Amino acid sequence: MNRKYQAIAEKIKKLVIDSEYRLGGKIPSIRDLALTYGVSITTITAALRLLESQGIIEAKDRVGYFASSRVLKDVERHREYEPVPKNLADNIFIRDLATLNQNHAVPLGSAIPADEYLPNRQIQKSLLRAARRTSETLNYWFPGTPAYLSAIARRMSNIGVNSTGSDIIATNGAQEAVMIALAALTNKGDTVAIASPSYPGILHALKMLELQVVEIPCFPHGPISLDTLEFATRNFEIKALCVSANCSNPTGYSLSDEDKQSLIDICKKSDVAIIEDDVYGDIFHGKSRPTPLKALDTDGSVIYCSSFSKTISPGLRAGWIHPGRHYHSIANQKYFLNLSCPAITQIAVADFLDCGTYDLHLRKMRKIYQRNVNTLRDLVLRHFPEGTHCTVPDGGYVFWVTLPYTVNMEEIYEQALRHRIYFAPGSMFSISKSAARCLRVSGSNPVTAQVKDSIRYLADRIEESPHTQTDACEPN
Amino acid sequence: MNRKYQAIAEKIKKLVIDSEYRLGGKIPSIRDLALTYGVSITTITAALRLLESQGIIEAKDRVGYFASSRVLKDVERHREYEPVPKNLADNIFIRDLATLNQNHAVPLGSAIPADEYLPNRQIQKSLLRAARRTSETLNYWFPGTPAYLSAIARRMSNIGVNSTGSDIIATNGAQEAVMIALAALTNKGDTVAIASPSYPGILHALKMLELQVVEIPCFPHGPISLDTLEFATRNFEIKALCVSANCSNPTGYSLSDEDKQSLIDICKKSDVAIIEDDVYGDIFHGKSRPTPLKALDTDGSVIYCSSFSKTISPGLRAGWIHPGRHYHSIANQKYFLNLSCPAITQIAVADFLDCGTYDLHLRKMRKIYQRNVNTLRDLVLRHFPEGTHCTVPDGGYVFWVTLPYTVNMEEIYEQALRHRIYFAPGSMFSISKSAARCLRVSGSNPVTAQVKDSIRYLADRIEESPHTQTDACEPN
Repeated sequence: MNRKYQAIAEKIKKLVIDSEYRLGGKIPSIRDLALTYGVSITTITAALRLLESQGIIEAKDRVGYFASSRVLKDVERHREYEPVPKNLADNIFIRDLATLNQNHAVPLGSAIPADEYLPNRQIQKSLLRAARRTSETLNYWFPGTPAYLSAIARRMSNIGVNSTGSDIIATNGAQEAVMIALAALTNKGDTVAIASPSYPGILHALKMLELQVVEIPCFPHGPISLDTLEFATRNFEIKALCVSANCSNPTGYSLSDEDKQSLIDICKKSDVAIIEDDVYGDIFHGKSRPTPLKALDTDGSVIYCSSFSKTISPGLRAGWIHPGRHYHSIANQKYFLNLSCPAITQIAVADFLDCGTYDLHLRKMRKIYQRNVNTLRDLVLRHFPEGTHCTVPDGGYVFWVTLPYTVNMEEIYEQALRHRIYFAPGSMFSISKSAARCLRVSGSNPVTAQVKDSIRYLADRIEESPHTQTDACEPN
Repeated sequence: MNRKYQAIAEKIKKLVIDSEYRLGGKIPSIRDLALTYGVSITTITAALRLLESQGIIEAKDRVGYFASSRVLKDVERHREYEPVPKNLADNIFIRDLATLNQNHAVPLGSAIPADEYLPNRQIQKSLLRAARRTSETLNYWFPGTPAYLSAIARRMSNIGVNSTGSDIIATNGAQEAVMIALAALTNKGDTVAIASPSYPGILHALKMLELQVVEIPCFPHGPISLDTLEFATRNFEIKALCVSANCSNPTGYSLSDEDKQSLIDICKKSDVAIIEDDVYGDIFHGKSRPTPLKALDTDGSVIYCSSFSKTISPGLRAGWIHPGRHYHSIANQKYFLNLSCPAITQIAVADFLDCGTYDLHLRKMRKIYQRNVNTLRDLVLRHFPEGTHCTVPDGGYVFWVTLPYTVNMEEIYEQALRHRIYFAPGSMFSISKSAARCLRVSGSNPVTAQVKDSIRYLADRIEESPHTQTDACEPN
């Protein structure tokens, strides 16, 4: 049997390794730990010295102990890294969409922007102008219409990315962009790293391409833990990393510019291609457009994917990819997948962007989304069980809710759907068990009385549901 | 050493097995064969008796010998069946398209319909009407917009296929339809059968999905040899057959209804899924719309793929798939590939089809294409070397040209491109060496003086090119 201080050291170590204590952050004081574990100050001191000798924590003179920012998640931690399991509920998303279309469910979990937030009148004018140009609309345009590729190049320049237009390929939304990038870079059985939680489309894409997945946990106030990423790239042969560095779905978190550079360095060291999904980058909540990873890319190894589905219209399917040095193989993937994208939607989007109202529209949209997210967060924190944690998004319109205990979220999901309320259960976003006590809430639609009611409804279902107490810990 | 009659038997056998003599057709008379091979009638008679005993030919009293219609292509024949080789020129198509867009090359090999043959004014009206419906155009519509799915269901009924609309999924053209069908039905390393020659997009799709390919030769006056197909399904584990039963690209041939039924029976016996590409079916040259395989399908095992890219506009990317009993898995593929197709193009196509002018347009288009093909065929036969063979298409606007000898077609292709003439060399359509002396010619554009000149130009390049004599044989 271990001695008492060793047992306590193990408990504290687990909290550090599981990122329950923020890496690099201060851990509770010796006095508080002694009270928490009901042991003497001597025992706690012995435990902390042991952890310090193991490099799990670091002492800072006169300040206290900190969870080591360099801690390497040990192999035990990574035992949970598994390929996407065969029984991943691959149909859940389709069923939800059908529900939304047909039953007018309350779209509490939907990441589709509400019609009324879209620039309907302007895009209609652009579509009408485009429709008159049949000499262009009726033809194939691979890799895209000249006007669209130029307009994209200008937007890329605005956010710090070099582009001539001829380095861009039009895609049917960002999902197709990510798919063709993955298809070009990987073979069946290869391993791809993603953040956990991640946008569900990524998990499904990996499953369809028969790839293995390594989930890298998110971080307090960050979409992905760089320490764990570094560990993973050293311990697994990872072909590519799929990541949203800005306003990521579902946490809403962005990486700092410094962390973006570190992420690029980590991937470069292990020759891991970066597939960046930046669909929420334009709807940041802060003062300025967060930098895409691609802007920090010096050798063309970042593949940039984005679309206007969140900002102009999901129905236009107007996306693009800047494949960098992978242009040739990704162009081939696109061409033999579906030859090209429709011309009229590209012409209309280019026309709309040329009108110069996009940035004004974005400013309005950002305010609305930020307000919706704040309102919804307040409601969730007010009505959900004590100890519920909500992320504070750096942008976008979704946030991630972690309950203080595990309930049968799938059952509540089914109950809610029957009640015409749609939310997105955590299991859609991660194969990790820890996501089971989470859900995504979205402010992509107006916060109506019906939406407010639906939060109370969910809170009640959660409250009345049998639950499993998990270790008390700082929320994610 | 073999005796003389055995050597001659081997030569004749090769011609039968390679389909140089039409299976089931009469082979030359004993007298003619004696003259051809410069041997006695006794020797020829001995050779033919040997072949008869081997089941390679059949005697019919007072008529002569026939290439056995039941001959099973032997394993030797199938030694050439190989997976798509790594060095398949995967970029050739993209470069050609760039040439077409940028240099205004004479589009002698292009399968893209000319603008002036498309219903420009009507589709423009439909696009304008669609553009005004922003409440629909800005939204996701998976698996398609209701009006589009209904319109497709009506067209399917017109050609003998049961459809409710809810069994249809909108796709970005037929290429995407075939891709998602293949992705849903196969795993890396599986074997898929295709006709040889086939549309190049199929070869590339198989390559991208890392599938093995078995090429089934085409047939005099048929797009695919059923005898060889039956042999292949018995000797290889084939997951799926990709086939155009109507007006197939590049031969233009259709299967008879009887042969369509046989094809379905052969596939059913060996549990081979059928992926039918029917993009040229509406532009038949005969009296009535040829039946799709799907119309003969009794258990939902035929997956029907088509589009309006050949008849309304390639730039709309308006395709669809009727996946039969594979609906669930193919819907998933589509959804996680790119979520949905743009709404406006679907709404416009449905509107256009509702106007009721599509069939009138098709009637005009069919006449034009048939006339173009006839003119081009005549020109090729007049100018190309003696012994050149052209298929007589049952529909569509392309035909397949077989030279009497092998030349360096790739070199002529490069020469022609520099001269701003684009034709499609045989090697794009098959991995079989025999395609090297073939090319596809297309009547999708008006037969201008420039087009006529380009045929003479090609004829001259072929004439002056060093060539390898192949065995005298009936042309394909």
